[in-house]
Amino acid sequence: MKAKLTILGSGTSSGVPMIGCTCPVCTSSDPRDKRLRASALAEYGGLSILVDCGPDFRQQALAAGIRHLDAILLTHNHMDHVGGLDDTRALNLCERHPVNIYCQKYVEDSLRHSYAYAFAEPKYQGAPEWHMHIIDGDSPFRVHSNAGDEVLSWEKGFGYRHIENHSAPDAGVEVIPIQGWHHKVKKLSVLGYRFGDIAYLTDMNLLEESEFAKLQGLKAITLNCVKFDSHHAHFSLHEVLDFFDRVGAAESYITHISHLLPRHAMFEKILPAHVHPAYDGLVIE
Amino acid sequence: MKAKLTILGSGTSSGVPMIGCTCPVCTSSDPRDKRLRASALAEYGGLSILVDCGPDFRQQALAAGIRHLDAILLTHNHMDHVGGLDDTRALNLCERHPVNIYCQKYVEDSLRHSYAYAFAEPKYQGAPEWHMHIIDGDSPFRVHSNAGDEVLSWEKGFGYRHIENHSAPDAGVEVIPIQGWHHKVKKLSVLGYRFGDIAYLTDMNLLEESEFAKLQGLKAITLNCVKFDSHHAHFSLHEVLDFFDRVGAAESYITHISHLLPRHAMFEKILPAHVHPAYDGLVIE
Repeated sequence: MKAKLTILGSGTSSGVPMIGCTCPVCTSSDPRDKRLRASALAEYGGLSILVDCGPDFRQQALAAGIRHLDAILLTHNHMDHVGGLDDTRALNLCERHPVNIYCQKYVEDSLRHSYAYAFAEPKYQGAPEWHMHIIDGDSPFRVHSNAGDEVLSWEKGFGYRHIENHSAPDAGVEVIPIQGWHHKVKKLSVLGYRFGDIAYLTDMNLLEESEFAKLQGLKAITLNCVKFDSHHAHFSLHEVLDFFDRVGAAESYITHISHLLPRHAMFEKILPAHVHPAYDGLVIE
Repeated sequence: MKAKLTILGSGTSSGVPMIGCTCPVCTSSDPRDKRLRASALAEYGGLSILVDCGPDFRQQALAAGIRHLDAILLTHNHMDHVGGLDDTRALNLCERHPVNIYCQKYVEDSLRHSYAYAFAEPKYQGAPEWHMHIIDGDSPFRVHSNAGDEVLSWEKGFGYRHIENHSAPDAGVEVIPIQGWHHKVKKLSVLGYRFGDIAYLTDMNLLEESEFAKLQGLKAITLNCVKFDSHHAHFSLHEVLDFFDRVGAAESYITHISHLLPRHAMFEKILPAHVHPAYDGLVIE
């Protein structure tokens, strides 16, 4: 099954340019040097699957013309990857479905703090309506079309009522989670995702040995690099290049890029032939 | 003392256009119909004071060239008004100062949930550094230049260290809080702010009678209207016009506008002579 991955954001947590910075990267006029926070849209088996929903989600959705999502997969709970979840309210309104969110248990626990109002009972009128699906790094899982989901009906003075939809769910598509870690001491579990022959990995600086078996035969892969040298939670450029070498995907893309790496045009030149900096709007298929 | 107010966002919680919407307002090509989430920059007595820091803060700061803030005043704790606070990390980096946040006690309590990592001890490396200042609707308060604040020094592997700065604080400027409410049953306290002869009010549908005395002799005022008719938490257009009539400011501006109000050009035409829809980038002085 053919996958298509659109990079909606290729930037680190502050984005590029960084507020207040006047460095050559932050002041570049190359649109590829305008990097929103890391996020990607996978179109796979007829489904639209967003990976991460950072603070730029609204801007990214408008730019990419997103009007429909079957699911959102979260890699981890950092603000630059979940900070835009409130804006999924617009999808509740135009799709009249809850939004399906797939994440690890600790990520859900964290959302229950940071988005307490979305889990409250009774809920503030118009707060987001989510269906949470708990996943882990070991087990492939299936994502389904949201057309089979319950329907939301708006009632003035109350908010949404949920109406059961008894149509049988479709077969869905299989997604393979890749277990990685922020911090080499395994401080924070981060999931990457494989959709057919494309894998989207970010925000790691350690992978379980066992995970490399899941990364065979890839047409394309992404991985994070914030700056040349090591960062407490991200791969250094050398580590990323070694990783790409080992995985041996046909094409490899660096994402989660900060202003401490060169401007796109220059960065591309110093990388090996099959390694590229990602950029916002890049389509991989 | 002369105040200047720049509207950084004039939109309701979903912004305009709303993700997925194809109505005439959301598809308008008039830049005044592109409304980011409600926020304003007050330049007053030599200080730069941001009111609210919603999810579009990074986009707004880049557009307005904001590189320095002395303080952020929050009106209330809803996500469309506090969702961008993580991006104040960039100010910590370029200013090397904590960011001064002024808000009510319940708003701070709420931030301690939604931004738990910013209040944690020990703190994740690079998490935002804030100084919280608790205010209420009764007492005028002073905002100072942040040049007298402690200095942040970055230490690899640890994060920020705070270095005391023993310079005496400047006299600062006085800001007058205006006590309003979301919901006519006083469900959620919302503060407006008066800077000299300009008052910025949003997200209310009830004001204490006593507050009108604080709104005499204004050159300009803003107030929120989401749609023509009443909304559970916002003024209707009739209520806003009655309010503006009673206050009698020289010029009055409507903000927190949704796609349920007309396109800017048409909306302006149906309003009384001294009432205008605000728009992103509008400068009031």
